Amino acid sequence: MQARFTLYYWPIPFRGQFARFLLAFAGADWAEADAKAVTALYRADPADQPLPMMAPPFLRDYEGDVWLSQMPAICSYLGDVLGLMPGTQTKDAQTLKVLGDCNDVLEAMTRNSGVQMWTDDTWDDFATGRLPQWLSLFEELGRRNGLTETHGTLLGTPQPGVADLACAALWITIADKLPALHPVLDAHAPAILALSQRLADTPPLAALRADQQDRWGELWCAGQIEASLRDVLARWQNSSPQ
Amino acid sequence: MQARFTLYYWPIPFRGQFARFLLAFAGADWAEADAKAVTALYRADPADQPLPMMAPPFLRDYEGDVWLSQMPAICSYLGDVLGLMPGTQTKDAQTLKVLGDCNDVLEAMTRNSGVQMWTDDTWDDFATGRLPQWLSLFEELGRRNGLTETHGTLLGTPQPGVADLACAALWITIADKLPALHPVLDAHAPAILALSQRLADTPPLAALRADQQDRWGELWCAGQIEASLRDVLARWQNSSPQ
Repeated sequence: MQARFTLYYWPIPFRGQFARFLLAFAGADWAEADAKAVTALYRADPADQPLPMMAPPFLRDYEGDVWLSQMPAICSYLGDVLGLMPGTQTKDAQTLKVLGDCNDVLEAMTRNSGVQMWTDDTWDDFATGRLPQWLSLFEELGRRNGLTETHGTLLGTPQPGVADLACAALWITIADKLPALHPVLDAHAPAILALSQRLADTPPLAALRADQQDRWGELWCAGQIEASLRDVLARWQNSSPQ
Repeated sequence: MQARFTLYYWPIPFRGQFARFLLAFAGADWAEADAKAVTALYRADPADQPLPMMAPPFLRDYEGDVWLSQMPAICSYLGDVLGLMPGTQTKDAQTLKVLGDCNDVLEAMTRNSGVQMWTDDTWDDFATGRLPQWLSLFEELGRRNGLTETHGTLLGTPQPGVADLACAALWITIADKLPALHPVLDAHAPAILALSQRLADTPPLAALRADQQDRWGELWCAGQIEASLRDVLARWQNSSPQ
C-alpha cells in the first residue's frame, strides 16, 4: 500500500533528519525515495519538477497532493498536518525561528555545504567561537522557555512539538555521528542535550536511529566536507583540553 | 507615539527588505532601529538578548510582546498578524518555501554573506548557471500558479500575499540596485519581474523605495562583498553579449 508521505533525501541524516524525526515521532506512514530518484528529481529542469525546487529535502504528501522543498517549510507543514505545531501565532513563529537556526548551524558546521573545507585553524576558531555561541543560544532559548524545569513552553513542552524535535534532530545527530563533539555540547548546552537525548531515546526515534546506524554507520553530511570535518576532529580531539 | 513594530536591521535593503515590503504594503506602523542599536543587540550575549538570536533582521512587535529573528519566521509572523498569509496549510507551507528560496538566492548572490569574494570566473559561472536556474525556478513556480493570467494562486494573487511581496522584495531590489542584472531577470523570469515591478510601483512600496534611494543610494548588501560584486559586474556588463 502507498505510504502517505515520501521523503526525497539522500541516505544520510543531515538536512533530511528533521522531517524524519517528525514523521517517526508522530507514527506517520512514510517511504524514503531511493537515492537515484532523489538525484533525478534534484537534477530535473524546473518545468519537469512537480513543484519547482532547488535542492533536497523534498516532501510529497499523497493525501494532500502537496510537494514541498526547504526544510523549515517541510517541517512546518508536517507539524501542521501531524499536530506538532504549538498553534499560536507567536509560538508558531518562534518554531520557524528555531528551524531557521537549525539550518544555519548545519551551514556553519559544513562551511556552507562544503564551499570551503575545514583546516585546523578554521576549525579551532569555530570550536571556540561560533559553535559554543550557537549552543549557548539554544540553551538560553530553552532556559527562557522553562526548559530546566522540564515543563518548557517552546522547548521541553509536555507534548514535544516541532521545535523540540528539530532541536533533537540537530544536536543528538551531531552527538551520535560526531562523538568528539559530545563534550562540547554537554559543556555549553546541557539542558538542550538532555532534552535531545530524552526525545532520541523514545521508542520511535531510538528505532529510527538504530536503523540508520545499521545502514549508514557514522555518515552525517557525507562528501568531501565530512571527510574534512573528521580529519580536523581527529587531530583536535587529541590536542584539545576540552 | 510608539510604533507597533520595530525592525532591527542595518540601513541597507538586503535581508531586511522582506519585512519592510510587508510592513509598508500593509500600511503598518513601524520604526527602524538605528544602526548602533542593531549592532548592540547583534553583539549582545544570548542571556542579555530579549530572545536569544544570532543575526539581524530582528523584529519586535510591541502589541504582541514578541521578538523574532530569522527572515522567514519574521515574514510568516507578519503575514499572520497583517493578514497576508494565504491561510491554507498547503499555500502557507509553499509561502515558507518561497521565503526559504529567497534566502538562498541572497546567499548565492553574496557567496554566503561574503565568505568568499567574487572573481570574474566564479561570477561568469553563476551568471550563466545558478542565477538563471533560480530565475527559471521562480518563473516556473509563478506559471504553475497561474501567474501569466494575472490571477495566480500563490504568486500573482488578486490580494498580494507574503509570497508575492517576498518575490518583489528580492527581485525588484536586485533590479533597482544592480541594474546590470535587469536584462538577465527579464530574460529568464519575465512574469516574475513584471509582478515584482507591479507591486513595487504601488504607492506604499514606491514611496519606500524612493526614500531608500534618497538615503542609501545604490547600497544593496554592503561590505566587501558588494564591492566585489560591483567590481565583477562592471567588467561583465561591458563584455557580455547578454
